Amino acid sequence: MKTACSCYRVRSDGTYTTTGDFDMADTTTPYSDVMEQIERDFDGSVERLGEFLKLKSISTDPAHDEDTARCAEFAAQMLRDMGFEAEAVQTPGHPMVVAEHPGANPDAPCVLYYGHYDVQPADPVELWDHEAFDPIVIEGEHGPRIVARGAVDDKGQVMTFMEAFRAFKETRGELPCRVKVILEGEEESGSPSLDPFLEANRERLSADICMVSDTGMWDIETPAITTMLRGMVYVEVTVHGPSSDLHSGMYGGAVVNPINELARLIGMIHDDRGRVTFPGFYDGVTPLDPEVKAQWDGLGFDETGFLGAIGLKEGKGEEGYNALERTWCRPTCDANGIFGGYTGKGAKTVIAAHASAKLSCRLVAGQDPQSVLESIREFFESNVHADCRVELESHGCNPSIAVPTDSKWLVSARGALTDVFGRDALLIGTGGSIP
Amino acid sequence: MKTACSCYRVRSDGTYTTTGDFDMADTTTPYSDVMEQIERDFDGSVERLGEFLKLKSISTDPAHDEDTARCAEFAAQMLRDMGFEAEAVQTPGHPMVVAEHPGANPDAPCVLYYGHYDVQPADPVELWDHEAFDPIVIEGEHGPRIVARGAVDDKGQVMTFMEAFRAFKETRGELPCRVKVILEGEEESGSPSLDPFLEANRERLSADICMVSDTGMWDIETPAITTMLRGMVYVEVTVHGPSSDLHSGMYGGAVVNPINELARLIGMIHDDRGRVTFPGFYDGVTPLDPEVKAQWDGLGFDETGFLGAIGLKEGKGEEGYNALERTWCRPTCDANGIFGGYTGKGAKTVIAAHASAKLSCRLVAGQDPQSVLESIREFFESNVHADCRVELESHGCNPSIAVPTDSKWLVSARGALTDVFGRDALLIGTGGSIP
Repeated sequence: MKTACSCYRVRSDGTYTTTGDFDMADTTTPYSDVMEQIERDFDGSVERLGEFLKLKSISTDPAHDEDTARCAEFAAQMLRDMGFEAEAVQTPGHPMVVAEHPGANPDAPCVLYYGHYDVQPADPVELWDHEAFDPIVIEGEHGPRIVARGAVDDKGQVMTFMEAFRAFKETRGELPCRVKVILEGEEESGSPSLDPFLEANRERLSADICMVSDTGMWDIETPAITTMLRGMVYVEVTVHGPSSDLHSGMYGGAVVNPINELARLIGMIHDDRGRVTFPGFYDGVTPLDPEVKAQWDGLGFDETGFLGAIGLKEGKGEEGYNALERTWCRPTCDANGIFGGYTGKGAKTVIAAHASAKLSCRLVAGQDPQSVLESIREFFESNVHADCRVELESHGCNPSIAVPTDSKWLVSARGALTDVFGRDALLIGTGGSIP
Repeated sequence: MKTACSCYRVRSDGTYTTTGDFDMADTTTPYSDVMEQIERDFDGSVERLGEFLKLKSISTDPAHDEDTARCAEFAAQMLRDMGFEAEAVQTPGHPMVVAEHPGANPDAPCVLYYGHYDVQPADPVELWDHEAFDPIVIEGEHGPRIVARGAVDDKGQVMTFMEAFRAFKETRGELPCRVKVILEGEEESGSPSLDPFLEANRERLSADICMVSDTGMWDIETPAITTMLRGMVYVEVTVHGPSSDLHSGMYGGAVVNPINELARLIGMIHDDRGRVTFPGFYDGVTPLDPEVKAQWDGLGFDETGFLGAIGLKEGKGEEGYNALERTWCRPTCDANGIFGGYTGKGAKTVIAAHASAKLSCRLVAGQDPQSVLESIREFFESNVHADCRVELESHGCNPSIAVPTDSKWLVSARGALTDVFGRDALLIGTGGSIP
């Protein structure tokens, strides 16, 4: 999320509250005491968020490495203050904040919360009306909101569950379930330490469910839970032809040209209905749940506005699906980069010995990344000209995530959100991928 | 030509001669006195070539700018010594050697000789058995030959007509026709000054025929005249899509991707018979002269060896033609470069706002470069997706050259070559282009 405002729910009576409390809510249990405590201490929670936002935890900028470490320690200390066993664990990159609280009942379910404490750089600074790390509250169209770098990505979201923990502790002296927390400090710089850390701390982080607090609402009035996240296969494909670069005058017309050949193959990836032609690519893909589809159809998604904002009119994709479906629940293949031959200024008449493209497939539930990778290999190897050799390098595979719509966790969270916002919480997708 | 040896015709009696004298020969006139003078002074001509070869006229390397200027002056002085009005004319790049000799008869035809005095760098120097600018004569399979950088590209060829002039002057005191000479010093660096110079010196360089002495023989035993030179249209095509780079997770599958789109279009350039699909591309192209085709078919061209030398087996091109025809007399389209999106290491999930390719078409007689350029534009504009815009930048157009096989100049030159070599001189093509 790249916007710079955090959303607070303004009640009809003029009071406002965070949206964070839904995490712990259960529609069958009265949490009015906890809710009241949250409202009572609201100024305090805004103040604590303000302290969090002041820390310049810019993970991509080594000049801010100390600020980033200080921010991790700040988050760990907040958790310790609430009775968590918490530490900022060193990694090859920035620290990972890991915390655990036993809860009152050892048999209660365990919920793992994910968030990140690092932020993007504030550049271009001239576009900010005030200092990006000096949070202010402004009166917006929908009520007061906090503006600062990181307010909605992701410190605001992190504070929603932090403040929920605090309100439970202050009203009841305990948490209603076992809680684990992991906050990373490298989300804005590609999460290089996350995979190895999860792998090495599998037991320590095991939980019944993981809540990822780094997604969005549908709009400022409408709560939503992201239940689908596309997976990905990213490959670099190189087509090798002649053993060396050739002069296009001496050889042009008589030999295979790896750039033309690679282009031809990429041109074959989509059929005239916009479907991906890798063999077996759609194996396992199921139609969208009719209830979810009906919900999406009712969203009034402005496709013209969506396309117009990026200078487009027609859109392009798989026949029979609208833009929401195409990005949330249909698999794709895009070339993310291509290079070969002469790419400098002017002209050079070379037939390049090889040409490469970076291709990524976004995957949906039912697709197996390894099978898709093999399917891409099969596509290129079986269609390439006999005088060429295809080399495929994987830059990562990860599966799609789709939470079953009847999951008890999802039903519970959706009920809590609906309760607080006074309108049905949506189940939405997102086109992105998380490793 | 990139090889490093110059070819001399070894007679059956053990004497040898250059192949340069064919230029001036006329099968109907006895030039035995001139031929004898050439053989008599052969050691002298080899010595003069040696001096020419010692000059490090590496046009691409500014460190050798003075050597290159010295080489131009050397050539101009040789011409002045033979009674030419000659000068090394400054250009924005390296000097152009321009010379003229009136000949005995003002009504005689005027022949313009083109050659170049600049050479490629000697790198990689470790592959040379001796210093590249210290010419030596070695005993080769076909007799003695001179080895030095520039010996066959193009100082050796230049010296053939220089020595022919000299022999005429020494035996008869005059040249048999009017002669003009232009030697450029930028052939190995793309001839940037040539076009403007020709344009500005149109009158001064006008002639009845131009002899280009920068082509090859068929093989060391078989003389040949290159009568066909493909023309060229070189364009850079850019496909513009979204107004900015997009995240492939958020947009992938719903919007046009300029890299995929450019690839698809390049893939459409050739049909399944290997023919170029630009509308009207083959307009004006005529079948090969049957006599020339018969001659080519009789050459015993080793297509397997031609392909094998560059690591290929099958070849690829227009159906119904062999590799010689495909490169000598058929038009083509090759992508010489392609670039777009992320081209660094690893993965970046970007949908690029635009993607570009450098495309060149080799043209043959009958094709008009401007029409081909328009045809390329029409192809891209009419086939591109409605959400994309095509930008076409021309990097140069030049027509094909095909000398009529019944031209009196060609008949005369061919007769002279046949006479000297004792075997029929071939009429061949070359796939390259000269501005």
